[in-house]
Amino acid sequence: MMTAKEIAELLGVSTDVERELTRVSAAEDADADCIVFAADERALAVALASRAGLILVRRDAESEDVRVLRVDDPRYAFAVCARELGRVSKEQDLYRLEQGENEVRGDALVHSSAVVEEGAVVGEGCVIGPNVTVYGCVRMGDRVVVQAGAVLGAKGFGYVRGKDGAYVLFPQQGLLVIEDDVEIGANTTIDRGALGETRIGRGTKIDNQVHIGHNCSIGKNVVIAAQVGISGSCTIGDGVVMAGQVGLGDHVTIGPGVILGGASGVFPGKTLTGEGQMFMGVPAEPLKEYLKGVARVRRLKNSG
Amino acid sequence: MMTAKEIAELLGVSTDVERELTRVSAAEDADADCIVFAADERALAVALASRAGLILVRRDAESEDVRVLRVDDPRYAFAVCARELGRVSKEQDLYRLEQGENEVRGDALVHSSAVVEEGAVVGEGCVIGPNVTVYGCVRMGDRVVVQAGAVLGAKGFGYVRGKDGAYVLFPQQGLLVIEDDVEIGANTTIDRGALGETRIGRGTKIDNQVHIGHNCSIGKNVVIAAQVGISGSCTIGDGVVMAGQVGLGDHVTIGPGVILGGASGVFPGKTLTGEGQMFMGVPAEPLKEYLKGVARVRRLKNSG
Amino acid sequence: MMTAKEIAELLGVSTDVERELTRVSAAEDADADCIVFAADERALAVALASRAGLILVRRDAESEDVRVLRVDDPRYAFAVCARELGRVSKEQDLYRLEQGENEVRGDALVHSSAVVEEGAVVGEGCVIGPNVTVYGCVRMGDRVVVQAGAVLGAKGFGYVRGKDGAYVLFPQQGLLVIEDDVEIGANTTIDRGALGETRIGRGTKIDNQVHIGHNCSIGKNVVIAAQVGISGSCTIGDGVVMAGQVGLGDHVTIGPGVILGGASGVFPGKTLTGEGQMFMGVPAEPLKEYLKGVARVRRLKNSG
Repeated sequence: MMTAKEIAELLGVSTDVERELTRVSAAEDADADCIVFAADERALAVALASRAGLILVRRDAESEDVRVLRVDDPRYAFAVCARELGRVSKEQDLYRLEQGENEVRGDALVHSSAVVEEGAVVGEGCVIGPNVTVYGCVRMGDRVVVQAGAVLGAKGFGYVRGKDGAYVLFPQQGLLVIEDDVEIGANTTIDRGALGETRIGRGTKIDNQVHIGHNCSIGKNVVIAAQVGISGSCTIGDGVVMAGQVGLGDHVTIGPGVILGGASGVFPGKTLTGEGQMFMGVPAEPLKEYLKGVARVRRLKNSG
Repeated sequence: MMTAKEIAELLGVSTDVERELTRVSAAEDADADCIVFAADERALAVALASRAGLILVRRDAESEDVRVLRVDDPRYAFAVCARELGRVSKEQDLYRLEQGENEVRGDALVHSSAVVEEGAVVGEGCVIGPNVTVYGCVRMGDRVVVQAGAVLGAKGFGYVRGKDGAYVLFPQQGLLVIEDDVEIGANTTIDRGALGETRIGRGTKIDNQVHIGHNCSIGKNVVIAAQVGISGSCTIGDGVVMAGQVGLGDHVTIGPGVILGGASGVFPGKTLTGEGQMFMGVPAEPLKEYLKGVARVRRLKNSG
Repeated sequence: MMTAKEIAELLGVSTDVERELTRVSAAEDADADCIVFAADERALAVALASRAGLILVRRDAESEDVRVLRVDDPRYAFAVCARELGRVSKEQDLYRLEQGENEVRGDALVHSSAVVEEGAVVGEGCVIGPNVTVYGCVRMGDRVVVQAGAVLGAKGFGYVRGKDGAYVLFPQQGLLVIEDDVEIGANTTIDRGALGETRIGRGTKIDNQVHIGHNCSIGKNVVIAAQVGISGSCTIGDGVVMAGQVGLGDHVTIGPGVILGGASGVFPGKTLTGEGQMFMGVPAEPLKEYLKGVARVRRLKNSG
């Protein structure tokens, strides 16, 4: 629960509303305890007709309603409100530490059936979901959120083949370092380094069923959608965006700010660069080139 | 255990066999307690030579063997027999409720190390496998089967980027509604709605390692094979079939009865329709068009 | 801990070094207890300058340093050393059996929150990671390693559609046989046979998030990288290598020694053969053909 004035202060604005808000909601479901947002005129009409207690709107929105709070980006402000309200209500959550030996600082939450191995470091305010595995090689910063079933710090996939045809595991004994504010989706797997480390940069967000191999270095504020597969020893720059099912071979380098379209693929050892440049296809090429190829094949089909 | 007469009645036919059957099996492994099936002449010969106690055959099968039971679709009848025998033997299974607070009705089975959070609704006859996570936002109908490691109701992947480049999670607080008779494979993940709901329609079958994003609406009797990825806010019609590794961008609409071939992909916002129409490739196109393209590129290669 | 002489004997060579070694490491991190390796001249210089107690080098390496141990393949020897040192230190690990009824032989390790169902057979020296599920239909050989979250022996994805449009599960009651020395990655799923068995051959190594369907037969010393999906009833020959995200339709046959490039796909029922032959693309074709096609489409784009 927060007062309208506390929320306004959080967003750097002010309000005359005297009310306590407990949650965010869609306008259709709102009652007087709710914060809603309106990003365009149509949404504004719906929100004004709702019972919401506080309405986040754009600075240029036309309304005299006292519940209206003008901000730069209503959608962003709405997400910030949800985050803050969540922090306030967190004491209601289950607080359970799986093993006394873990270095769990402050107010971390470890849910049922999660396993945090001895030696693992879990920072302040982390949330470890049900059935998550955190191996002992993991060094986690603060406010890391890990959803159910994720596996952090498993051994990587590196083998050496003997003369007899049988494979022997190359030593997989490095660390997995996860910086502050990283969020990791359900059933995602991130392997520890072989001899060095695997690192996930601050603020990076990872969806469900993503695989990140050993010795990868993922930058800050990277967005990785579901089912992406990143082979070992890749380097991903800050602010990269990867859509669903993208696949990278090993030792790939993706420069800062690159955008990889859904299901695109990059062959081992390749480098893609270009801030804001979108790549598509297998092998991935700049969007313009990709679309030219699609059009050419289509024309070819129709020509006979 | 069921008598031959009970089985015949179940299948809407009759028999003179006086015998008790305990299980289904392949003809090669059958003894007198077993039901087997034969869908063609060769299988019939094998079945007749076996020790099986009951043999499901096509209506036009030629045999005077008393063990023969004539049905419209022997393979289907065989599956129905297995289902019924499984229900009868279910009392032998482990019965364990993880947390007293859950609304678990009737005869639901919750296996070891599964986590069913407070607030979750689990219907009658559901089976929740080992290490499954059912978050509190899940509303499950009756006879839903969830295999090991699946994660139901995790938070979806929706973020808003601030001016500082950092991402804040858009509120993910909706429901995940799973209707009656849905079956969900191992390590599959289905996210809750953001503000609205995610819904899986009655009778839909989902294989292992499938990902379904927030706010998707999946129809009834849909078949989704392994490793399919469905981004947020997709709408899938009744009776759709999706082969392995298919990928859908967000806000995609797939009309009723469409068939998507293996590893095909649909770009965000697109719509595909056509009852019984098969689509292939990335971007997905009607099978005929796809094959024309493959042939054209092949001819091009051979032309020089 | 092993003495230098024990290690030399293990590798079939000899040494005058009188020292105890406790672990392998990168040269940069080595102290006198460490074994390092050098596969080329540059690495040799780094290793010689390090504090390592033992240095594995090629037979033709030029150095008079007493710490040098000459072997055929330094990288392989390094992996073998790590394996042996790991065996020696294993007694330090957690030893926990989840359920008394399991047939767990000898020195198997079952980690926290793993579920090994009654009836499952777990061989000597196996390691079952946290949150793993081993259904009762699994027959595991010796020294099998299963990382966290994997699901072994779930029911396969086979349904029969009734006249009412609803699907009924085809009986999934076969075994999953996993031979000696198989290693299985985190969150991988391998289904049991329907009526027959699923089999993973001796020495095969499987990465994270791989899916293997019911009734597959996987050969010996096969390497399967992350996120590969193998549909039901496939046959994979000995020594096959499959890169990340490969997809196989059902009833596919891959001959011994074939190499499938990243994200390549094979349609249902197809057969690919050729020891050492690499295939790429969807549908997969020999590397030379694939590259010709990529070049042709590129030329086409540039031609206007």
